[in-house]
Amino acid sequence: MVVIMQPGVGESEISGVVEAIQSYGMDAHISRGKERTIIGIIGDERKVDFDSIASLTGVERAMPILKPYKYVARDVTTRDKIIEVGGVKIGQELVFVAGPCSVEEEDTTLRIAEEVKLAGAQFFRAGAYKPRTSPWSFQGLREKGLAILSKVREKTGLPIITEVIDAADINVVGEATDIYQVGMRNMRNYTLLAELGKTGKPVLLKRGDSAKIEEWLAAADYIYRNGNENIILCERGIRTFEDYTRNTLDLNAVAAARNESSLPVFVDPSHGTGRGELVRPMSLAAVAAGASGLLLEVHFDPQKAWSDGKQTVTPAVLKKIITDCRRVAGVA
Amino acid sequence: MVVIMQPGVGESEISGVVEAIQSYGMDAHISRGKERTIIGIIGDERKVDFDSIASLTGVERAMPILKPYKYVARDVTTRDKIIEVGGVKIGQELVFVAGPCSVEEEDTTLRIAEEVKLAGAQFFRAGAYKPRTSPWSFQGLREKGLAILSKVREKTGLPIITEVIDAADINVVGEATDIYQVGMRNMRNYTLLAELGKTGKPVLLKRGDSAKIEEWLAAADYIYRNGNENIILCERGIRTFEDYTRNTLDLNAVAAARNESSLPVFVDPSHGTGRGELVRPMSLAAVAAGASGLLLEVHFDPQKAWSDGKQTVTPAVLKKIITDCRRVAGVA
Amino acid sequence: MVVIMQPGVGESEISGVVEAIQSYGMDAHISRGKERTIIGIIGDERKVDFDSIASLTGVERAMPILKPYKYVARDVTTRDKIIEVGGVKIGQELVFVAGPCSVEEEDTTLRIAEEVKLAGAQFFRAGAYKPRTSPWSFQGLREKGLAILSKVREKTGLPIITEVIDAADINVVGEATDIYQVGMRNMRNYTLLAELGKTGKPVLLKRGDSAKIEEWLAAADYIYRNGNENIILCERGIRTFEDYTRNTLDLNAVAAARNESSLPVFVDPSHGTGRGELVRPMSLAAVAAGASGLLLEVHFDPQKAWSDGKQTVTPAVLKKIITDCRRVAGVA
Amino acid sequence: MVVIMQPGVGESEISGVVEAIQSYGMDAHISRGKERTIIGIIGDERKVDFDSIASLTGVERAMPILKPYKYVARDVTTRDKIIEVGGVKIGQELVFVAGPCSVEEEDTTLRIAEEVKLAGAQFFRAGAYKPRTSPWSFQGLREKGLAILSKVREKTGLPIITEVIDAADINVVGEATDIYQVGMRNMRNYTLLAELGKTGKPVLLKRGDSAKIEEWLAAADYIYRNGNENIILCERGIRTFEDYTRNTLDLNAVAAARNESSLPVFVDPSHGTGRGELVRPMSLAAVAAGASGLLLEVHFDPQKAWSDGKQTVTPAVLKKIITDCRRVAGVA
Repeated sequence: MVVIMQPGVGESEISGVVEAIQSYGMDAHISRGKERTIIGIIGDERKVDFDSIASLTGVERAMPILKPYKYVARDVTTRDKIIEVGGVKIGQELVFVAGPCSVEEEDTTLRIAEEVKLAGAQFFRAGAYKPRTSPWSFQGLREKGLAILSKVREKTGLPIITEVIDAADINVVGEATDIYQVGMRNMRNYTLLAELGKTGKPVLLKRGDSAKIEEWLAAADYIYRNGNENIILCERGIRTFEDYTRNTLDLNAVAAARNESSLPVFVDPSHGTGRGELVRPMSLAAVAAGASGLLLEVHFDPQKAWSDGKQTVTPAVLKKIITDCRRVAGVA
Repeated sequence: MVVIMQPGVGESEISGVVEAIQSYGMDAHISRGKERTIIGIIGDERKVDFDSIASLTGVERAMPILKPYKYVARDVTTRDKIIEVGGVKIGQELVFVAGPCSVEEEDTTLRIAEEVKLAGAQFFRAGAYKPRTSPWSFQGLREKGLAILSKVREKTGLPIITEVIDAADINVVGEATDIYQVGMRNMRNYTLLAELGKTGKPVLLKRGDSAKIEEWLAAADYIYRNGNENIILCERGIRTFEDYTRNTLDLNAVAAARNESSLPVFVDPSHGTGRGELVRPMSLAAVAAGASGLLLEVHFDPQKAWSDGKQTVTPAVLKKIITDCRRVAGVA
Repeated sequence: MVVIMQPGVGESEISGVVEAIQSYGMDAHISRGKERTIIGIIGDERKVDFDSIASLTGVERAMPILKPYKYVARDVTTRDKIIEVGGVKIGQELVFVAGPCSVEEEDTTLRIAEEVKLAGAQFFRAGAYKPRTSPWSFQGLREKGLAILSKVREKTGLPIITEVIDAADINVVGEATDIYQVGMRNMRNYTLLAELGKTGKPVLLKRGDSAKIEEWLAAADYIYRNGNENIILCERGIRTFEDYTRNTLDLNAVAAARNESSLPVFVDPSHGTGRGELVRPMSLAAVAAGASGLLLEVHFDPQKAWSDGKQTVTPAVLKKIITDCRRVAGVA
Repeated sequence: MVVIMQPGVGESEISGVVEAIQSYGMDAHISRGKERTIIGIIGDERKVDFDSIASLTGVERAMPILKPYKYVARDVTTRDKIIEVGGVKIGQELVFVAGPCSVEEEDTTLRIAEEVKLAGAQFFRAGAYKPRTSPWSFQGLREKGLAILSKVREKTGLPIITEVIDAADINVVGEATDIYQVGMRNMRNYTLLAELGKTGKPVLLKRGDSAKIEEWLAAADYIYRNGNENIILCERGIRTFEDYTRNTLDLNAVAAARNESSLPVFVDPSHGTGRGELVRPMSLAAVAAGASGLLLEVHFDPQKAWSDGKQTVTPAVLKKIITDCRRVAGVA
């Protein structure tokens, strides 16, 4: 941490800061400039309460130097993390996860799964638990949906990615899924993250729609430090003033997360745009920016999808996206 | 819902939309203009899947008319909701909730409680469970903190407001608190909201930092429809590009929530500004905008607070804020 | 500026930074911690190119200490700036500026002016030049509008505030106005600001809808350093994800600007909310937060206003706002 | 426009809205549902003042159907606009514009130009007029810079793109430049846009950092309707809460602008990221999303660039970017 003192402070304010730093068992380094005095902390500042230091008399600003995460940082684990699920090496080969927004009736869901498999998808996705803004909207088939997902896996052989929305559901969801999905609403549900950390099963962690990149990586650290290194990051758009698209897909964050951490980064262009016609160009752009995989909402009849029809594409479009993305990946 | 068709669509697209609407058991009303055809839905559109309609062939836009919430809407319950806790009529009299960010050691916590009571606060607040961005930061005293809160209530008679961060903790937290606080990170944790809806105990629902006003009210509806009408809304700032302040306190939302719903609205100017020197002016502004109560971080020695010291004020400042706010309330 | 070096950099990187700093004629101060080396600049860092330093080899981050403005800073001019126009002491007494969004036909405009004067407004406002998002919208009466404003001043004695949108129009607008308004779209039109700085006539500078508080004050510095100290800041809402209101009125910025600068700060709750029913509560809140004046859109028949009718209030509402705001100002 | 009436309004409110619509010479179409009455406008709603209608008694919401722009809309001009400058067909072939942020001393500037030409850039860019947040920062070499740009064109044959910041400078800048750049701060400087519309010379229009996609296209319409069809759109990042990157590069907007208009869309990944190490991946992503060209800050010694060194890449990196982008363009 760097503590910048106000202009003209006296020795008593300076020693107040030094003592506060020492009370955490750390050392301070004083640097007296003509205009300001600057105090640095020597040691791991993460133990120090940032706000308390910032509130000391005579302090103008206190700025952290260390990042709020440690384990998932690129400088700790330099090699790209590879996670193998059902024979697919996530983080090494380009991965396509496809399926409808919600689990639908068994025959529909199965038909979609077969068609996305044929189109080249390696994973099947569909939500059994659907967190929805309004309590008046469809909330998912829940347990019944999980049973359908298990059938899909059995019949198609596709491994499953589905969302878990509460720590109490981890076991029951775990029986149906190969990878837990944490949705953007739960990125800061630290109880859920910590409990998922204890399972060892891979977790796909979506970025919150108001989360900074650093906060997203810190959320991953909640999983990692509880013992689970199998984490996939997933960018799905942030909330901004732009309302032409459902969210603003932040591909800067993909390139940045690849630099800052060793984890694979997926992109969800369906939620990231909210518009079917933008899914293909943004899929290509995601791969060009460094994404290791894509989450795509696919349905053989998007207009009859139970939710998110507007951003859903057909298996035929999926096939074209997969072909083109593989070519782009060859360049990127 | 209003469905706006693309220019020049034919009868088949129009009847496609009409049939889709009818499949939900609703009626459609077609309005043919010179440039566009517009189709309205007759009935409660909340049953209709918005996205599916929007994805139909020939549809340019589909816009909801109804709000995503129902029970907490002002037009359903026209009279201001009054919630009585420990003799205080929330929603009727001006309420001040004060205390440190985190529960601290017992003697410190007790001393703060006594001082804020003396200054005029009617409720004591302090976090036992602290959701923190980084797993490396202090996470609260947890159960030990709850025990201290119970002592504070016993010794000072002040009712308690403290945060619950997971549905599994509702019972244990409920023994120590008079009002459950749902923090901004959990505003979209619908499992938690639904379970709190079953308790009957008042809930203070903080607005998420990326939540629209409508979404905040819809979150309140999750609590209400599970049987609990005792909901207090709390504005605590949204996340914007401005970084001089910790958040952007959105007082528009206070005036708006008062118009749109019958629930009392509190404001947290400590998190809403992140700067102690802005707490007093923004407290006055909050009351002027229509707030029914304030949540304030107070410590006899802000510089030694375990967290959020920078935005914490002293009991003396609290006293002045209470006096001045009561005068402003007389005007507003 | 504080330059934070990457962990483990060698002496050559450190001396590279030191030399770069010295090349601007400044001194560097090296502070070697266990984990990082930190280099401070001694002198006025505003002469140093921030980006070049940040791009030097081995640099992790470079953070400015000084603010991007100088003259308008509270520590330079500690006393509140008072600007006297037409006998009104702006910055000392509470000021109400009222009128329609656009200059309308002469008789309508005059009638509004007479009514707002009667209600207690000390200034008349109306736009002759209307910057509009779409070239297909009404762009204002322009020169004809200025002539009407001159008549209003002549007949009612009210001083005028109207917008200037281009440096080439400064003279012609100056003949009709007592205070130049710079709209939010032009806050970063530095040519306009610099030219207004040469006039000496007061300037009301609206904050840009994506401008940080510091950038707003730096824009004021463009006017000041060209010789014009008569600057009024005006908060009018920033652009965020919230779309219930037209903008998010940022009253934090009012309290902050009062602390950071000596200039009077006005608030425009009409644009800041975009909703007539929110204008009164947010006017009170603005004054409670420390505003020295308000800009209000007023029309005797808001439904017939040529623009912005939705956020316009009547003279009767204006009168009530003025009375209540004066009472709140007594507390704040 | 679609006008949604409040529930339970009577005939007088409905006829009030109808009369208001008719007063603009348009027709209204009434659609009475069970819960609401909806009124549509028949004709070109752009003549109607939206706000006035929205403020009529009994109106709950009024929503525009038509877009705020007309000429640049894809449905008006279906074929991609091709703009030929110096033998390069913008909108048809992939275009690379490169150079330093600011015009520097003549020999440095010339050397950069020669190196970017060698690397494959077809245009040279450098700012002579530099709009800067702080009046204390370097403001560009201005006229001297224009003279250097003319030399660069003469010696290298590269056509020039440079920024014009005020309508009064159009002629002098026009002598040195082949394409006018309008910076993000001036996207809403409608006087400047209108005057550029009268020149016929191509204009590169950067998106404002708080501009919605529709507003950006409406700004282009200001140029078009004044007679100049040679417009290049340029996405350069929007302002959000994320501060890891300088801006949030919104590639959704590139794909969207390609769908909604017929104009070529460029991307500036240098400003869009603010970080040299992200420039290459985001260049590829931009092309994958549909960009017709890139604006890149390039310097043979980024650490000595006069401004924006942190986001500047070397000619060698430029060359690699050009090669890889051409391959991605083959797929996209």
